[in-house]
Amino acid sequence: MSKQSRRSFLAKSTALAVAATLPFKNTEAMSKSNSPLVHHVFFWLKNPGSKADQQKLIEGVKTLAKIESIRALHVGIPADTEKRPVVDSSYDVSELIFFDDLAGQSAYQEHPIHKKFAAEYSYLWEKVIVYDSMTVK
Amino acid sequence: MSKQSRRSFLAKSTALAVAATLPFKNTEAMSKSNSPLVHHVFFWLKNPGSKADQQKLIEGVKTLAKIESIRALHVGIPADTEKRPVVDSSYDVSELIFFDDLAGQSAYQEHPIHKKFAAEYSYLWEKVIVYDSMTVK
Repeated sequence: MSKQSRRSFLAKSTALAVAATLPFKNTEAMSKSNSPLVHHVFFWLKNPGSKADQQKLIEGVKTLAKIESIRALHVGIPADTEKRPVVDSSYDVSELIFFDDLAGQSAYQEHPIHKKFAAEYSYLWEKVIVYDSMTVK
Repeated sequence: MSKQSRRSFLAKSTALAVAATLPFKNTEAMSKSNSPLVHHVFFWLKNPGSKADQQKLIEGVKTLAKIESIRALHVGIPADTEKRPVVDSSYDVSELIFFDDLAGQSAYQEHPIHKKFAAEYSYLWEKVIVYDSMTVK
């Protein structure tokens, strides 16, 4: 086994060991720094005061987790940080996804689970802003 | 050693093993799913066409990595994803940080390294938007 293969083998087997011992999913724990494409979506609800609609949308975003090219998914709501003029806390739900590359993001956009999500949940939101960033080393 | 301690010991020692074998920093690889507070900042340069200013700001954002409460830091630029009306790719640099909690984010805001960053690099940007999200389980 070459030094390179051995390193790769060690990394993979250790990653599996971590997945087995740490109290969170492999996709969440392991892959982010290998997944430089950051896809962050902010949703503004049609009924911004509605906790029920917010909860429904959170559930909807969570259905996306089954899409194979997603390396990590964080569903969020505005955090209770200090109110400053530069902080936009007017959105209702955020969806932060890490992909390995542009192809992973495209596959996600075209995936039946993503299309089902849009078809079933888009009635909830009034506005969406998406930021796609490529991590620089 | 109790089952709980043993699991914790295994997790910690395996995490160290991963940090030693994988080609990225421990903070990047291991801690995100334990760090639910997502702080995402988008910067628009005064000279949006300037690659030099973009590079300078990227270097500036990277200085933040030494702040103790930061669990992961991704510095990014707009990704070359499909141009869609909902995608805002007009910013020049993005800064994505994970914290454990609100206290970690406050400590970051008040940290001398953060204040030095603002003092030394803010002349580069015209506009900033910050989104703080708390991950929901």
